[in-house]
Amino acid sequence: MSRVLYSLCGADSSVRFSPHCWKVILALKHKGLAFEEQPVGFTEIPTLEDGFSKTVPILKDGDKLIADSFAIAIYLEQTYPDRPSLFKGEGGLAMARFVEAWSQSTLHPAVTRIAVKHIHDMLAPVDQAYFRESREARLGATLEEVATGREAEISGFSEKCTPLRNMLKFQPFIGGSEPLFSDYIVFGAFQWAALTGNTGLLDPNDPVSNWFERCLEFSEKG
Amino acid sequence: MSRVLYSLCGADSSVRFSPHCWKVILALKHKGLAFEEQPVGFTEIPTLEDGFSKTVPILKDGDKLIADSFAIAIYLEQTYPDRPSLFKGEGGLAMARFVEAWSQSTLHPAVTRIAVKHIHDMLAPVDQAYFRESREARLGATLEEVATGREAEISGFSEKCTPLRNMLKFQPFIGGSEPLFSDYIVFGAFQWAALTGNTGLLDPNDPVSNWFERCLEFSEKG
Repeated sequence: MSRVLYSLCGADSSVRFSPHCWKVILALKHKGLAFEEQPVGFTEIPTLEDGFSKTVPILKDGDKLIADSFAIAIYLEQTYPDRPSLFKGEGGLAMARFVEAWSQSTLHPAVTRIAVKHIHDMLAPVDQAYFRESREARLGATLEEVATGREAEISGFSEKCTPLRNMLKFQPFIGGSEPLFSDYIVFGAFQWAALTGNTGLLDPNDPVSNWFERCLEFSEKG
Repeated sequence: MSRVLYSLCGADSSVRFSPHCWKVILALKHKGLAFEEQPVGFTEIPTLEDGFSKTVPILKDGDKLIADSFAIAIYLEQTYPDRPSLFKGEGGLAMARFVEAWSQSTLHPAVTRIAVKHIHDMLAPVDQAYFRESREARLGATLEEVATGREAEISGFSEKCTPLRNMLKFQPFIGGSEPLFSDYIVFGAFQWAALTGNTGLLDPNDPVSNWFERCLEFSEKG
């Protein structure tokens, strides 16, 4: 059975930077499921699978199509229950929604302001035009205006990670002794920053940096 | 078998305002376990149970003593596994630590700045002296200086609740369809504000206010 993950790429198709696609890459590796990654540019998404979804990730698992990273994680958990769990129970699934809400309301706006110009510059020309128009409408400012807040955002980034840092005093992963989908949700935000040229947002000795490295090691093992 | 919860009170012993004690009150109700609440002032804590703990809550369950709200929740889960679960699995237990870290690094400092003078004024004189000395050392400022930030803190409070508000688009509780200990962790912070005279921090129609009401209804049912 073929398994294809459509994920977002820049002009260089080897650079896949979408935080939401990274969540799914690590979820598939966690489940030990082989897959082929098919990188696509922003403007190709509407042409995929007869316009199945306006956003990636899209997972095609045999003849089944699923979009949205959280929905894909739930699908994988339900479809492959004998593989390692992504949630470790009903409570873990519910609380992963809180982790998602925290990551996407706290880290994502910060990474957007830090990385928006880098992301734009990495894209193929046709995707650059789409990205500029859609993001400027969403952000209510030009990409260049948003980017003026970059240094302030970098200065404040470490403090935004405080809940994760404090939790790491008790356990090595958000999922406890091992990473779960909740870790991959937050990992996605950091990987997005890193792959768009924004490394060094945290001190290398920061417990959060160490957690990120542990997640990365896990993903490379898969 | 007797079950006693030592919890913090003001000069009026009917006002129990500690966020950490409220977490345990709701956890005991969730488990359907009868208990007697014994209110104590700050300066009484070192005299309880031969100086068992420097902080409350302390739960005395028969001849077993446990301090720290999270440790008490784990104890209840392990000791009463046939009662409704507080975590719904290993993942839920782990992620409750993240929720705790978020609540205590985001909401608690805000409620401290909003409520610190109210709390002081509610205490018995002997506890007021202790509270002033210990909190001024911890905060690096007089209580009156801390309180000057109150209005700004109230203005910014709603935004701090964004992760919870966004999560509530998906489910009625942090625990999913029903409240779990993770809900009681956050509930404790709001109840602490409310019982020290700081109601109205959120619009009554805010989904977070509705969630708080649902938690309160649950606790009154118990």
